[in-house]
Amino acid sequence: MLLRQLFDYKSYTYSYLLADEKSREAVFIDPVAGQLDYYLQLLNELNLTLKLAVDTHVHADHITALGALREKTGATTYLGKPGDVACADQPLIDGQTLTFGDIKIQVIYTPGHTDDSHSFYIEEADSRYAFTGDTLLIRGSGRTDFQNGSAAQLYDSLHNKLLTLPEDTQVFPGHDYKGWSTSTIGEEKAHNPRLRIDNKDEFITFMNNLKLANPKFMDIAVPANLGCGQK
Amino acid sequence: MLLRQLFDYKSYTYSYLLADEKSREAVFIDPVAGQLDYYLQLLNELNLTLKLAVDTHVHADHITALGALREKTGATTYLGKPGDVACADQPLIDGQTLTFGDIKIQVIYTPGHTDDSHSFYIEEADSRYAFTGDTLLIRGSGRTDFQNGSAAQLYDSLHNKLLTLPEDTQVFPGHDYKGWSTSTIGEEKAHNPRLRIDNKDEFITFMNNLKLANPKFMDIAVPANLGCGQK
Repeated sequence: MLLRQLFDYKSYTYSYLLADEKSREAVFIDPVAGQLDYYLQLLNELNLTLKLAVDTHVHADHITALGALREKTGATTYLGKPGDVACADQPLIDGQTLTFGDIKIQVIYTPGHTDDSHSFYIEEADSRYAFTGDTLLIRGSGRTDFQNGSAAQLYDSLHNKLLTLPEDTQVFPGHDYKGWSTSTIGEEKAHNPRLRIDNKDEFITFMNNLKLANPKFMDIAVPANLGCGQK
Repeated sequence: MLLRQLFDYKSYTYSYLLADEKSREAVFIDPVAGQLDYYLQLLNELNLTLKLAVDTHVHADHITALGALREKTGATTYLGKPGDVACADQPLIDGQTLTFGDIKIQVIYTPGHTDDSHSFYIEEADSRYAFTGDTLLIRGSGRTDFQNGSAAQLYDSLHNKLLTLPEDTQVFPGHDYKGWSTSTIGEEKAHNPRLRIDNKDEFITFMNNLKLANPKFMDIAVPANLGCGQK
């Protein structure tokens, strides 16, 4: 599998381009609107056909390229729970399989950061990959204080879903603010301070007392992303 | 092989932590002084012993963590050509092999960006890796207008050394300014605009007419790095 981690400096967002090297079918996960020209350049240079464009959730800190990628490439777009986001071709459904070439993406509903957060899991050759959006970050997690976030749901998504994946699963998050690019499920189990709070009530109290400022861009990004970045 | 790409936001520098997963012996390539605490955290959490710390060249845009890592971990430091950099334990020598655990790093002298620029090549399992510093960047190259840089030498380093590596070699550069993380030798051969200038005289003319401003930090960074970041 071809895997390219791409970084948007303005929002500290990681986007991912994945492709099946035989069929050249590709997927973008969490693409950023401002990077569209680079994405089209990469697809062209690597001779890839974009089959899917998916967002882990409706983002509050950057505008998605989902709509623009569909328009430019004909990719099928997936975003949100059923009934949530009218602009996307399809909602994401817990347990469903998305396919590009011979590679299968398992969709895992992981609410908590937002109530529409999903993670994506791939097993390919001897490797395992989890694209965890803002649910699981490297040595951290997403916040839970807006967009129907829930610390209780985040606790369950982390402990009952993502941490049950094989320990050698490589973790590719939606952001990192200290310059780290990847981790593993085993490493996060051992060293992520938020995952070491193993009492759910304590976790809820901790998350509810973070008192973070709202993302500066939120009042623009959320409405724009409900239109797949095109309204 | 464990491979972690780490990013310094201030200087857009990529640093690399590599480790042999059996022996837990590790190497840092191009570590940045401001990231030292994170490096020590990672070494500790991943249960690694730092054996080597190497810089591809004396950097002009950030201060190296070479000296600090030697002091904190006892790692052996490598930097520069023979006779160049008194602060490092050893100079780098074209064609030499550095070893961590069972993994061998082949040192390739690739002058041009600076006259002390080296690249590092690793073959491990079915994968090939080139850490190209500022000699080969993704869709670009380092500049050649200071620190005894030479467009003619850079042309030779690119065409006669790095581009002779297997096409599927993954390229890990010293910087990227557009958020791209990696490429391959084959991809750069096909799509790097500077590599497509295949006439050496044209390349020299092109490089000598870039008229770039000096790195803001150069007057501080170069002298500091000649002291391995500790003077």
